Amino acid sequence: MKQTRYEQVANKIVTLIQNGALQEGDKIPSIRQLSRELGLSVNTIKEAYWRLEDKNYIAAVPQSGFYVKKQSVLGWDSTDKADAAQSRMLNPQEVNFCQVYAAFKEYGESQSKVNLGIAGLDSEFWPTEKMARFMGEAVRQPDVEALNYLMPPGYLPLRQQIARQGLAAGLNLSPEEIIVTNGCHEAVFLSLMALCKPGDTVVFESPIYFSLFHMLKQLDLRVIEIPSHDGEGISLKTLEFVLESQEVKAMYTISNFNNPMGFSMPSWKKKKLVRLLAGYDIPLIEDDVYGDIAFKDRPDTCKGQDKSGRVLYCSSFSKTIAPGLRIGWIAPGKAYDKILEIKTLMNICATSIEQIAVARFLKEGGYDRHLRRLRKKVGQAVRQMRQAVLAHFPKGTRVTDPDGGFLLWVELPHDVDTTLVYRQAMKKNILIAPGPLFTLKGKFSHCMRLNAGMWNPDIEKAVAMTGQLCQAQVPKQRDFPVCPTPQFQPPPDPRGEGRPAAFG
Amino acid sequence: MKQTRYEQVANKIVTLIQNGALQEGDKIPSIRQLSRELGLSVNTIKEAYWRLEDKNYIAAVPQSGFYVKKQSVLGWDSTDKADAAQSRMLNPQEVNFCQVYAAFKEYGESQSKVNLGIAGLDSEFWPTEKMARFMGEAVRQPDVEALNYLMPPGYLPLRQQIARQGLAAGLNLSPEEIIVTNGCHEAVFLSLMALCKPGDTVVFESPIYFSLFHMLKQLDLRVIEIPSHDGEGISLKTLEFVLESQEVKAMYTISNFNNPMGFSMPSWKKKKLVRLLAGYDIPLIEDDVYGDIAFKDRPDTCKGQDKSGRVLYCSSFSKTIAPGLRIGWIAPGKAYDKILEIKTLMNICATSIEQIAVARFLKEGGYDRHLRRLRKKVGQAVRQMRQAVLAHFPKGTRVTDPDGGFLLWVELPHDVDTTLVYRQAMKKNILIAPGPLFTLKGKFSHCMRLNAGMWNPDIEKAVAMTGQLCQAQVPKQRDFPVCPTPQFQPPPDPRGEGRPAAFG
Repeated sequence: MKQTRYEQVANKIVTLIQNGALQEGDKIPSIRQLSRELGLSVNTIKEAYWRLEDKNYIAAVPQSGFYVKKQSVLGWDSTDKADAAQSRMLNPQEVNFCQVYAAFKEYGESQSKVNLGIAGLDSEFWPTEKMARFMGEAVRQPDVEALNYLMPPGYLPLRQQIARQGLAAGLNLSPEEIIVTNGCHEAVFLSLMALCKPGDTVVFESPIYFSLFHMLKQLDLRVIEIPSHDGEGISLKTLEFVLESQEVKAMYTISNFNNPMGFSMPSWKKKKLVRLLAGYDIPLIEDDVYGDIAFKDRPDTCKGQDKSGRVLYCSSFSKTIAPGLRIGWIAPGKAYDKILEIKTLMNICATSIEQIAVARFLKEGGYDRHLRRLRKKVGQAVRQMRQAVLAHFPKGTRVTDPDGGFLLWVELPHDVDTTLVYRQAMKKNILIAPGPLFTLKGKFSHCMRLNAGMWNPDIEKAVAMTGQLCQAQVPKQRDFPVCPTPQFQPPPDPRGEGRPAAFG
Repeated sequence: MKQTRYEQVANKIVTLIQNGALQEGDKIPSIRQLSRELGLSVNTIKEAYWRLEDKNYIAAVPQSGFYVKKQSVLGWDSTDKADAAQSRMLNPQEVNFCQVYAAFKEYGESQSKVNLGIAGLDSEFWPTEKMARFMGEAVRQPDVEALNYLMPPGYLPLRQQIARQGLAAGLNLSPEEIIVTNGCHEAVFLSLMALCKPGDTVVFESPIYFSLFHMLKQLDLRVIEIPSHDGEGISLKTLEFVLESQEVKAMYTISNFNNPMGFSMPSWKKKKLVRLLAGYDIPLIEDDVYGDIAFKDRPDTCKGQDKSGRVLYCSSFSKTIAPGLRIGWIAPGKAYDKILEIKTLMNICATSIEQIAVARFLKEGGYDRHLRRLRKKVGQAVRQMRQAVLAHFPKGTRVTDPDGGFLLWVELPHDVDTTLVYRQAMKKNILIAPGPLFTLKGKFSHCMRLNAGMWNPDIEKAVAMTGQLCQAQVPKQRDFPVCPTPQFQPPPDPRGEGRPAAFG
């Protein structure tokens, strides 16, 4: 499709940003200046800058001019059809997997030595000794039949502890609002089962955790992907357009330290989102499984903003204690009765030993201390992984800098096809998660997600090897696309080392 | 609806049998004799006897006459519309719960002191010490990350042990055919999800384990209940009629020590059933969760007869080790890939500690010895419960005499409304499972299921109390319905004590 003039201008600037030629904080030419330089009307440049602003590439500073904003790593660029008014992308679609998924699944089942494709922590970080002790005690403790059913909503002392922990996230839950599940995954699946019937439409930010697609497909649901912007999550403008024009049954979001993009939705946006959805009477499935792994302040939640019971808050101890426990929970608001019913008919209840042991660990086992230490260790692993990516990946690569969680979203130069990298890496016994896994739109082909929840020499080597595979796809003499006039050449690479730029 | 003459005759004889007036082995009048006595045509009596034979109330002994057969306890009597050719009952219907269920559920959630309404064993029977040891070891064992995911299909040593155990049931499974689940319940739910789409029809023997209705309702499936006959399970004749006339997507059966009726489908019938279903290309979900609790020989399975991969065999350790472990499994035949996929997307995997600990217990913990002892203890509890029912319940009560499992199906005189008994018992802190819970047809109103998996003085008192509540509903001077001629009076009660008859 032919681009309009203002689209051409906007795209050139985006390319400079994506190349690393224009960096965060750089001033770009004023509207008048660029209008003169390119011989285009002021209105055309204005339109282009407006688009760039809307997409959060640049920001206007009053009395000063336009500056490149701190960038999140996006596959959605300014040529996307994401603009609500013109978009055909925003119709509901069936879930049809890209071929790469089939291969990814196959590989996931094999025993990969270096798995950068999962979302998990080093087992060294787990409180194994503690859990062994509490589990042993749980089996023997006289006051609870630890081998009997602990029926939904679940072991009361555990729900009490979950409610207490929630305070740190700004949640004010009572144990009576909480249902214990077999992990957060099941909590989300239960939510979808409770809220939707086959053929219904679910919306969420894109890119998104790929397992969601499997649940949606199994339940025969349709989806609308809505672009995420600038480290703040879903575009509310686009969401509103969709809610206005389509019949939507539920929204799903990973609100904090998002998988795969790492952002936490800011507080004001959570508030706005909850209000917006309430206006359309649409429930929100909030997946906050990463929220407790905060390197600085523990971010708040959408649930905390919810007064109408429309938020189904899902989380688990899979990231903060250990995944094999399969202990998660849901605070489903108005959907409580329905979720309780489905949980029971699905598999009766969560295992008892784990419910009792986790409750004990939270109450008297120094869980808070464990969490503080864990955050520190994870933060360190993430920093190391990030440095390795910056060191080994091609120039022009951008990588997120999350304030929590342990997932890095990497955006490579557009030459790089991460599906190809993924296949080549597989042969070297390395698993990565290529960008196209996180969408049904065939996008993010130059992106990948890396698991930074563990760090050791093998992983470092694997990152370096992955970087080499990417590098091999970048043309030796890159011709940077430049603006048509010499006045607006890309500035020289400040580090001059062919290293990728680090974006926040 | 007006009864035909032969229906009237058949019903009278059924009433005599149900009253205990005619007992197992009693000879009934010959066709000619009754024809003379009632002044009805030989053909009418023939038709009546044919119906009674078909319903397995009586059997013809060549050169001798007709005798009352060993009775299973049925709610399906000869006036039922179960006769394939005439039945409107055999159309698919939506799942709509009877009101009693709502109350039952509510009570189930409260802490009932004496629970005769569940299907569970005394926790004294569980190998608690052993499991405590193996769980403790599992958490500490160095060669498996016991707190990590043990992804589907599940821990290989566990699947190996399950395959080995299967040999006793005539199964010849390889570990590669088995997927570990969170209990048998989940295995059945997974099967229904894998095989059916909303609106599809599932058939099963009636009465049936009531939780099935909840799964079917959640998945928006329709049902056809097919009568069970004479301690042998589903009527194959009726099933065939249904398969011929309706589009059926799957069948569900509890093949051994059935819940609630206690029967085990005989080997020949399993074979016939599997062949019949294969002819219509219909998968069978076989729930064999009670099969290992055999007092005599361990019965075989439908899966063992299956050559085409159409049987999805589901079981668990909830009855043989402990329910709180939530360790079950499925051997899904041709549906393997689909089940594996749904299990993963639903809640990723079963808990690791339990998978490892159960595998160890089976391999080196003396599980077989435990099972032998368990069978003996359960058999004893069942006998005691059964004797108590015979001692305390009204005359005319019949109770099953299962060869395994721990559920008793009790059929009371038709005067007794077990839903009323259930409500009265609730006030005395006793839970029973009234018959109407086990069907959508509003039947079995004079039946109840009792849990005989535990026995102690409190339970004995509860059984006696329940018997009194039933007794209070039986008119003091019962006028036995009799045949219109004096020649065919009910024989005197052989024990003359007003005690109920014990049927096998």
